[in-house]
Amino acid sequence: MQYLRNCWYMVGWAKDFAVGELAPLVLGNERLVVYRGASGLLAALEDRCPHRLAPLSAGCLEHDNIRCLYHGLKFAPDGRCVQIPGQAAIPATVAARSFPIVEMHSAAWVWMGKKSNADPALIPDFVGIEHPDWQMLPGRMDYNASYTLINANLLDLSHVPYVHRNSFGGGEELNPEAGAAFTMAEPTIETLDRGLRMTTVQKSTPTGALFRNEVGPVTDMWTTNDFLVPGIFLLTMEFFAPGAIDRAGGQRPTETPLHRNFSCQAVTPLTDRTSRYFYAFGPWPQSKMSAETFAKISEIAFAEDKAMINAQQQVIDSAAAVRPKLLHMDKMNSKFDSIMRRLLAADAAEDGAVAHSLTAAVE
Amino acid sequence: MQYLRNCWYMVGWAKDFAVGELAPLVLGNERLVVYRGASGLLAALEDRCPHRLAPLSAGCLEHDNIRCLYHGLKFAPDGRCVQIPGQAAIPATVAARSFPIVEMHSAAWVWMGKKSNADPALIPDFVGIEHPDWQMLPGRMDYNASYTLINANLLDLSHVPYVHRNSFGGGEELNPEAGAAFTMAEPTIETLDRGLRMTTVQKSTPTGALFRNEVGPVTDMWTTNDFLVPGIFLLTMEFFAPGAIDRAGGQRPTETPLHRNFSCQAVTPLTDRTSRYFYAFGPWPQSKMSAETFAKISEIAFAEDKAMINAQQQVIDSAAAVRPKLLHMDKMNSKFDSIMRRLLAADAAEDGAVAHSLTAAVE
Amino acid sequence: MQYLRNCWYMVGWAKDFAVGELAPLVLGNERLVVYRGASGLLAALEDRCPHRLAPLSAGCLEHDNIRCLYHGLKFAPDGRCVQIPGQAAIPATVAARSFPIVEMHSAAWVWMGKKSNADPALIPDFVGIEHPDWQMLPGRMDYNASYTLINANLLDLSHVPYVHRNSFGGGEELNPEAGAAFTMAEPTIETLDRGLRMTTVQKSTPTGALFRNEVGPVTDMWTTNDFLVPGIFLLTMEFFAPGAIDRAGGQRPTETPLHRNFSCQAVTPLTDRTSRYFYAFGPWPQSKMSAETFAKISEIAFAEDKAMINAQQQVIDSAAAVRPKLLHMDKMNSKFDSIMRRLLAADAAEDGAVAHSLTAAVE
Repeated sequence: MQYLRNCWYMVGWAKDFAVGELAPLVLGNERLVVYRGASGLLAALEDRCPHRLAPLSAGCLEHDNIRCLYHGLKFAPDGRCVQIPGQAAIPATVAARSFPIVEMHSAAWVWMGKKSNADPALIPDFVGIEHPDWQMLPGRMDYNASYTLINANLLDLSHVPYVHRNSFGGGEELNPEAGAAFTMAEPTIETLDRGLRMTTVQKSTPTGALFRNEVGPVTDMWTTNDFLVPGIFLLTMEFFAPGAIDRAGGQRPTETPLHRNFSCQAVTPLTDRTSRYFYAFGPWPQSKMSAETFAKISEIAFAEDKAMINAQQQVIDSAAAVRPKLLHMDKMNSKFDSIMRRLLAADAAEDGAVAHSLTAAVE
Repeated sequence: MQYLRNCWYMVGWAKDFAVGELAPLVLGNERLVVYRGASGLLAALEDRCPHRLAPLSAGCLEHDNIRCLYHGLKFAPDGRCVQIPGQAAIPATVAARSFPIVEMHSAAWVWMGKKSNADPALIPDFVGIEHPDWQMLPGRMDYNASYTLINANLLDLSHVPYVHRNSFGGGEELNPEAGAAFTMAEPTIETLDRGLRMTTVQKSTPTGALFRNEVGPVTDMWTTNDFLVPGIFLLTMEFFAPGAIDRAGGQRPTETPLHRNFSCQAVTPLTDRTSRYFYAFGPWPQSKMSAETFAKISEIAFAEDKAMINAQQQVIDSAAAVRPKLLHMDKMNSKFDSIMRRLLAADAAEDGAVAHSLTAAVE
Repeated sequence: MQYLRNCWYMVGWAKDFAVGELAPLVLGNERLVVYRGASGLLAALEDRCPHRLAPLSAGCLEHDNIRCLYHGLKFAPDGRCVQIPGQAAIPATVAARSFPIVEMHSAAWVWMGKKSNADPALIPDFVGIEHPDWQMLPGRMDYNASYTLINANLLDLSHVPYVHRNSFGGGEELNPEAGAAFTMAEPTIETLDRGLRMTTVQKSTPTGALFRNEVGPVTDMWTTNDFLVPGIFLLTMEFFAPGAIDRAGGQRPTETPLHRNFSCQAVTPLTDRTSRYFYAFGPWPQSKMSAETFAKISEIAFAEDKAMINAQQQVIDSAAAVRPKLLHMDKMNSKFDSIMRRLLAADAAEDGAVAHSLTAAVE
């Protein structure tokens, strides 16, 4: 599978990386070791000593350096070898590849592409845990499925009344037409530079079971959903007193909402058939509902997605030649696929440029 | 591996399919979902929603229809899509392939070939459980081996004194020549349209340990063994007072036997390396031996076959280029292989005809 | 992977083969059955009945012969078929391949090459268990790694202060320069016909934690280390009173050592990614240290190697195109690789000669 290289991948919640722990991680089929040095900075190296290809993650931390515990070679956070036992000269080729890594929004982000392109401004606005506007707990789940299937799931919320009938749906009887009020409401779609923004406006709509106690049986709802490469999902749901949207002339109301919640999610490809999914979902501080309530319902709901998507992956693997048949509900997916194709082409063009300049250098 | 398509495969005992249960099943490397609708009829569809390729077996039954619980598409038992949430028009290409399925002889049979060829008269005479002539209980076992190895086992009963020395052989000391009395008796072989019939005649032959209490130490035995495509084994053993066969002029005696029993078995290929084996073995109602006794000895004996055949499959997989060396004992196998080759060629010719008619249509 | 055929592989400790036990064994990707006949002699056959390819190891011993318990064929220790039930004539092609097997040095050795080359004089001097000079217990360990990685480990003892810092290193604080006194001492290297001999001479050297109670804080050490194809490691360590080597004019001292120990180890390739490792390590009879002490520390230390090497194999498998970068510490490995390449080429040339003579015979 081809992975987007020039983008930031979430590789963990920042708090998951304690000083001295060498965390092995597969990212887009590449083995990395991520660690926090004694100075507090994160580093990401390929998890492979260049000498005999032992995993550096089986080594140990020495201040900010990492020592391979097979034959004792030591590497700096930038991948340079700084010691070879029994040998004074260190060949420049004895080095581990390093990857830009940034700690932002309580998470760690790794750039897999060209180092000079690694602009932290491209890290998505993944505010959430530890942000004063929201009460939320971090979650994580591993899939036995391609990240593209998880993205496709997040880009088509029409699955909610079916997959999540017992969680987000509140366990009410399956009623496709009524239960799908949100997904049937046609969103406004904007194309961003590296993703999509969907805005869904629902006036005087029946409240789902989950929020009925919080906001009452009927509300105006204003929902904003960003989906950004490589698989970043940001969802803000706001519930207003009925009529608020009309009172605001059809714009997002400025009056105080009855309830507001936010979810940030990141899909990270490990291998072609395994993915890691980070998520947090929680209310504003004014809510009667707790961060724990949101975390618990998320865990149940995302396990429902995982069961369906892992099963879907198995079916796909058993029928390599069969293609999905896209329907009206897949329009967001189609738009996002276009963005991914454009960025993958840019990756490839960059390779071409590199190949060309190498050729030129040889001549 | 190439599978015979134009034949009926046993996919389960009829009683295994309860209304509302969606049974996933792999048959000849194809994923199917088999279910009994609210009307009581069985249906078999490919286990793959055409939309996003989620398994239909993770869905739910709605009367006789099946609803995919990923995005809510609903399918009729013939595979037609009858509902797409959020979309009025249903493209004809959004359909699941369906397979002819028939309930007969207390079992469910699926046809994998051309629908117009699916003649229920081709279902073998697999009477057994729930038939008044026999007292028997249904059994089932899964192999990690190709169905061809299980067929080869059933077509060469000379394995019985070795593999089954402790079960059918009654635990007597291994004595290849004496213990193999049945298998050494040369059967008469008739070639049927889709299989073989072997008739073994033994006069005044020592009784095996299993039946000695029932019929005494010496009997005349008349054994009929049909083996039919794709892997149907039907065995009737009749024990008569010594001399009965001569009294009948060498024909099957019409006098009342001392004992009679029957076994029906079906081998179904799941994948190239996994198979499902259905079996029942039991006596006539007059027997002092119970259906449970026969079921218990079968379970032990067929586990002996399974251990040997699973091990044989592993050896074969480790030595892809090595071919078996067929011996005198393999003559039934050679004849059956010819029948299979003929029917596989007919399958292929039908494909050719289809291909030809498609070509003609294009011109 | 290409395996050396014309060499002796250790397949077990002799005591592991009891009469009547049929031991299945994979050796260089070939399935063998090794057994001890009623006469006490070992035999090695391919573990595959030529008839239907069932494993002979699922059979039973009859005096020195082995009977397949699928259809009853019986084979002599040289692989000839001596009985086919129900068939008088035995075709010569119905035979199992046999392999030369020799019991020597309390171990069993199998030759995978041309039978006429199977000279027992080529079995390495693997004295050890049951030898009066040494007190030692046999050990065995299975790896999920290529035997070449285990060989490379044994050929470069500079890994000891890192991998074995808590076992052979005695748990002292990691100190690469001090802890590596042995591995930093440049050995004298002799090239043998089928291996290497390294002699390491250390005068007045600090004793490692393991032997400090036995010999005091400082000794002269004389270490001889043979490494022979396909993966035989023989190590003798002798500790002398300081000055002994100078008193002997730089030669191996003839005065009585303070302590002497020996280790014999054999690496046997099972498949491309699995290996079996046999080992024994123990002191001379005069030692205050027991055979059990040496066995226990070996078991701990070799489990450390195994964890590192199994992990190394996984990294290698994830990066097929990446080659190790050899350093000064790899000089023994480079020399041994040359020997292996020469012997593999001799194997291949022999094949060429066979091919040529076959061609000639046809003309």
